[in-house]
Amino acid sequence: MGNCWATYLGPQKNTNVRVSLPAVCIIWQLAMIVLFGIFIRYDEESDAHWIEHRRQHNITSDIENDFYFRYPSFQDVHVMIFVGFGFLMTFLKRYSFGGVGFNFLIASFGLQWALLMQGWFHALDPATGKITIGIEGLINADFCCAGSLIAYGALLGKISPVQCLVVTLFGVTLFAVEEYIILDLLHCRDAGGSMVIHCFGGYYGLAISWVLYRPNLHQSKQLIGSVYHSDLFAMIGTLFLWMFWPSFNSAIADHGDGQHRAAINTYLALASSVLTAVAISSLSQKKGKLDMVHIQNATLAGGVAMGTSAEFMISPYGSLIVGFFCGIISVFGYLMIVFLYFVSAFLEKYLKIQDTCGVHNLHAVPGLLGGFIGAIVAAFASEGVYGKEGLINTFNFEGEFANRGVGTQGAFQAAGTCVSIAFGLVGGILVGMFLLCIYEEIIHPVLEYNNHMVLKHQDIAESNFSVEQS
Amino acid sequence: MGNCWATYLGPQKNTNVRVSLPAVCIIWQLAMIVLFGIFIRYDEESDAHWIEHRRQHNITSDIENDFYFRYPSFQDVHVMIFVGFGFLMTFLKRYSFGGVGFNFLIASFGLQWALLMQGWFHALDPATGKITIGIEGLINADFCCAGSLIAYGALLGKISPVQCLVVTLFGVTLFAVEEYIILDLLHCRDAGGSMVIHCFGGYYGLAISWVLYRPNLHQSKQLIGSVYHSDLFAMIGTLFLWMFWPSFNSAIADHGDGQHRAAINTYLALASSVLTAVAISSLSQKKGKLDMVHIQNATLAGGVAMGTSAEFMISPYGSLIVGFFCGIISVFGYLMIVFLYFVSAFLEKYLKIQDTCGVHNLHAVPGLLGGFIGAIVAAFASEGVYGKEGLINTFNFEGEFANRGVGTQGAFQAAGTCVSIAFGLVGGILVGMFLLCIYEEIIHPVLEYNNHMVLKHQDIAESNFSVEQS
Amino acid sequence: MGNCWATYLGPQKNTNVRVSLPAVCIIWQLAMIVLFGIFIRYDEESDAHWIEHRRQHNITSDIENDFYFRYPSFQDVHVMIFVGFGFLMTFLKRYSFGGVGFNFLIASFGLQWALLMQGWFHALDPATGKITIGIEGLINADFCCAGSLIAYGALLGKISPVQCLVVTLFGVTLFAVEEYIILDLLHCRDAGGSMVIHCFGGYYGLAISWVLYRPNLHQSKQLIGSVYHSDLFAMIGTLFLWMFWPSFNSAIADHGDGQHRAAINTYLALASSVLTAVAISSLSQKKGKLDMVHIQNATLAGGVAMGTSAEFMISPYGSLIVGFFCGIISVFGYLMIVFLYFVSAFLEKYLKIQDTCGVHNLHAVPGLLGGFIGAIVAAFASEGVYGKEGLINTFNFEGEFANRGVGTQGAFQAAGTCVSIAFGLVGGILVGMFLLCIYEEIIHPVLEYNNHMVLKHQDIAESNFSVEQS
Repeated sequence: MGNCWATYLGPQKNTNVRVSLPAVCIIWQLAMIVLFGIFIRYDEESDAHWIEHRRQHNITSDIENDFYFRYPSFQDVHVMIFVGFGFLMTFLKRYSFGGVGFNFLIASFGLQWALLMQGWFHALDPATGKITIGIEGLINADFCCAGSLIAYGALLGKISPVQCLVVTLFGVTLFAVEEYIILDLLHCRDAGGSMVIHCFGGYYGLAISWVLYRPNLHQSKQLIGSVYHSDLFAMIGTLFLWMFWPSFNSAIADHGDGQHRAAINTYLALASSVLTAVAISSLSQKKGKLDMVHIQNATLAGGVAMGTSAEFMISPYGSLIVGFFCGIISVFGYLMIVFLYFVSAFLEKYLKIQDTCGVHNLHAVPGLLGGFIGAIVAAFASEGVYGKEGLINTFNFEGEFANRGVGTQGAFQAAGTCVSIAFGLVGGILVGMFLLCIYEEIIHPVLEYNNHMVLKHQDIAESNFSVEQS
Repeated sequence: MGNCWATYLGPQKNTNVRVSLPAVCIIWQLAMIVLFGIFIRYDEESDAHWIEHRRQHNITSDIENDFYFRYPSFQDVHVMIFVGFGFLMTFLKRYSFGGVGFNFLIASFGLQWALLMQGWFHALDPATGKITIGIEGLINADFCCAGSLIAYGALLGKISPVQCLVVTLFGVTLFAVEEYIILDLLHCRDAGGSMVIHCFGGYYGLAISWVLYRPNLHQSKQLIGSVYHSDLFAMIGTLFLWMFWPSFNSAIADHGDGQHRAAINTYLALASSVLTAVAISSLSQKKGKLDMVHIQNATLAGGVAMGTSAEFMISPYGSLIVGFFCGIISVFGYLMIVFLYFVSAFLEKYLKIQDTCGVHNLHAVPGLLGGFIGAIVAAFASEGVYGKEGLINTFNFEGEFANRGVGTQGAFQAAGTCVSIAFGLVGGILVGMFLLCIYEEIIHPVLEYNNHMVLKHQDIAESNFSVEQS
Repeated sequence: MGNCWATYLGPQKNTNVRVSLPAVCIIWQLAMIVLFGIFIRYDEESDAHWIEHRRQHNITSDIENDFYFRYPSFQDVHVMIFVGFGFLMTFLKRYSFGGVGFNFLIASFGLQWALLMQGWFHALDPATGKITIGIEGLINADFCCAGSLIAYGALLGKISPVQCLVVTLFGVTLFAVEEYIILDLLHCRDAGGSMVIHCFGGYYGLAISWVLYRPNLHQSKQLIGSVYHSDLFAMIGTLFLWMFWPSFNSAIADHGDGQHRAAINTYLALASSVLTAVAISSLSQKKGKLDMVHIQNATLAGGVAMGTSAEFMISPYGSLIVGFFCGIISVFGYLMIVFLYFVSAFLEKYLKIQDTCGVHNLHAVPGLLGGFIGAIVAAFASEGVYGKEGLINTFNFEGEFANRGVGTQGAFQAAGTCVSIAFGLVGGILVGMFLLCIYEEIIHPVLEYNNHMVLKHQDIAESNFSVEQS
């Protein structure tokens, strides 16, 4: 088992990973320390000078510190990144630890690099040359990691830890550039990141998967089964993502009504997508039983698709409609023959992409939809619905964008979605090719490694799961 | 296995569920969209007009938005509903997915219907005919679902998904009416819902279980075992309920000291109930070993019983006393022979009720106690303890209730508890009879379905759990 | 199996635990009720008089209530105590329930006793003779339990439930005295408790383990294995500790910038320690595979070591450096031969200590480091970095300490660390000796009991885990 990999992977270099992974971790972490030393400082709300700053700006209370507006949402997002994404990936029976553990490694490196990259683009003080960070910076760093973790979902079990880190390094970099273009240059609104996180992350991962495609990966299907308790762990991941999605979409929305509305809209869209996901899943199965994989993925699609428009006045029934269609579309992506042929099978047979975690149906397509839904909702915004000040406040029509109309805003939102797809696809292809280039140099035999990961438990695992052993 | 059910369930209609469940999900979700479109709008704190509203009402800061008072508690309650209740139901070895999955479906539908039902009774603006929702509305909707989820705990493994949805539809409706009578007409206080949630939900489920009782359900006992890891998942459910119960009882309490005090009281009652639950469980077992089922249920009883009085000045030692007795009573409910005979065995043998999850001892009785404890604490409230303004503030003695005395309040609290029991029992019987009436029409063979639910994993599951296979 | 214990444990007294555990639980809980009745009252922010208090003190809004500053962090800490510490202890395949369940019992008793002990030392009103409690008191009580739970980590599977409670009773008492000396008399700062919680708790547990050492405990190694799913549960514990550590270190820090900065620093140190832990773990293993036990423990060490200095202006890169070295040191503690010999093997062979959960490398050493890092950071604090007011505010140089310099503060921080070690070691030895003295009286055969704990599931468990059966 796993020997079929030897040919593909060339001569075994088992010792490589003992050198390459520690070397990359230590050197990159040292680089982070040096770069943080040069660039990163506390912002005025987390600096000890805050007590003086407060008095000078007539801030009446410590509760006005941004920490109290955003910290509860931050912790929820943090749980989504580490438990949600992590345990969502435990369903493969031989990669439970790999799923959780590499998720942990990717996010821990990614958030440091994200603080730097996003800081350079968004928070660099030209006078001092320093980046200042606060609670909003931490949330954005977690968001930025989410992009790479989504990509990892399409690559699960196929790449090594060092390759994960390479994918993350470039993923975070591309994310920061793409985010700068979409949010700053195009002045799009995207509080929950339908475009910048999900659409980008999904296509980035799929493009890498396409470049790294190897036909004999089919033979690994015997390794890509799931077991009862693995699925229950995956359900923990799903539930934490589902429950905390209102925090995800509201975490960096505007103070006050912005955060409030984003939470309500996401809550409603998620509830709605559960019912349609159950309906379509039941309709598709013999005897109407439910497939937990459909439920897990489709229920989350509602949250993804609300990412951009959650802070808009989409209205409660609008949120339900978004959830309604996302549940349907996401499950269809998995099962209907016509879609299977054109999407999943098409992906694997013609486009030569393997999508381990179903990233296409969970992130890429709902993110894409979310971007365009946001464009439509923005284009139909009016002073009647938002109020004169509310409209300016919600879309931040200030400074150089003071004269932008809602129609223009809608067009830019749509353009932003296209930018995120382009960045995902082109970036993913380039990163995939880079991974192939450096392959012989630093990368060890991948699946071999992953097999060793679980060997420790194999004596027990085999007795438990012998039914599936070849 | 499971064939014994065929006779009971009449001719097999395996295709039914493929039609009925999707049809109900889609139609009801469409109905929700239409009703939300007609009735539901953002409240002033989540509407984009908030920026104008703030200035008009001289609100100095965005942090005054109710979102920041309640959002952390809301997320904790949300976790209790989906992870807490969900995983508490995973202990049945063949219904782990059923427990979590149907819990998910019930809550997702229930919260939408609850926003409408509670809105019509509590938040309908007569001028516009619209319901406005905000964060407090979402918490109340989650609470309303809790009532139906508690009822589901008594029906776990016995009803189909469509029946679940029917139970939820009527459960939420009854809840909203009962809540209106208790909180508005009787002007009771019940921040943590001992009466309106736990007492109602418990008796509602038990009454339905009584109507649906079938003797050959005994034969399913081989399916109602638990396994080591299932129990560990159930322990996750228990712990999240236990830890977040202070948020449950304080989520919709008054701003300021009300929320603060509710959290402290619940925290103390829960801690106290752990020690007595351990004591009684150990006392009852051979060699003093502990039964995790006792611990799981009894420790939660302390939180349930504090639901009404958590926001009162029950004093810290009063909270400990409540927890002390609840731990004892709840464990006794499970084990002492005299109680077994009169309660559990009595329930099954004479009242013909099967109570899968022990809802009677975990919710119904502690909820009942909580209601009467609240009545007593209210009746003994005094200006010396609460302060003149504090008393008015805590019991909301304003408007038409400005002249109500604490003794009267206590009497009304007790009356409210009786109302909740009556609604639970009568409503449950009617809903149970309705389920029987529509049985042949829309409901598919239940356990057959549930069996199929896990068949997917059976090849593996059977190798794991072969000891218990018949 | 387990019979080897009979000799050591003397004549079997199987009925003891049926008497001793319930008796201790009931009597101690009754004592808590009486003591709470005499001493504990709501503080002014959780009392119904708050509405009057607010007006008298010109507090403009309910949001100024300390509840809203600290409740989100409190709930996170609560999750760490019950799920984090609890599930971290599930990795032993036969003690999953014991780990979670006794953790639950210890913490539930400990937090009540902690409210009293900490209240007597910190919050006793000399005029009324009452202790007032609020949300900060609850957080401190949870922290105080953490000390005893850390000690329990070194004793897991070796002591009975009653012994757990005895260890907790004295542990909380010692904690309160030690905390009073360090925080009040020496005027140290220790928001995240590197000194008072982790260093004290670690050495307290190790000292007890040393006194209770018995050579034939070696034979229990067959019981101290782990299985795949147990490890995945332990990973849940680890992740919740890791994710919520920023809340732990910021929960009782100063309002405003203090809490904000503590969260940022901890977040960064934790991320950094993941990379070095992965590096060293991979370097040490054949073929570079990762050992999840290293990852689990080492990644947390970064949070422990930031406990004291998290609220200081250690700067973001300073936090990364702390995490960097903690990850390395903690993994080294587990694996490098030279360290194994001098630390772990040395501990077991020469010092005769068995450290089930690796408390030395996870809490004691990182806590010790954290204390000294705090001393160094304090000694190098300057008005340039903190601002004049910020320096006074951060180190609370007021009242009798108004003239203390930063150098002196650093020296006192170092002295505080030594006090915590001394209390841990001396207290642990005394408590261990006390446990030996009362052994014959109240303590039942320990492991025998623990074996029974899981016997309920043995029929199934044995079929699952037969590979490891002797």
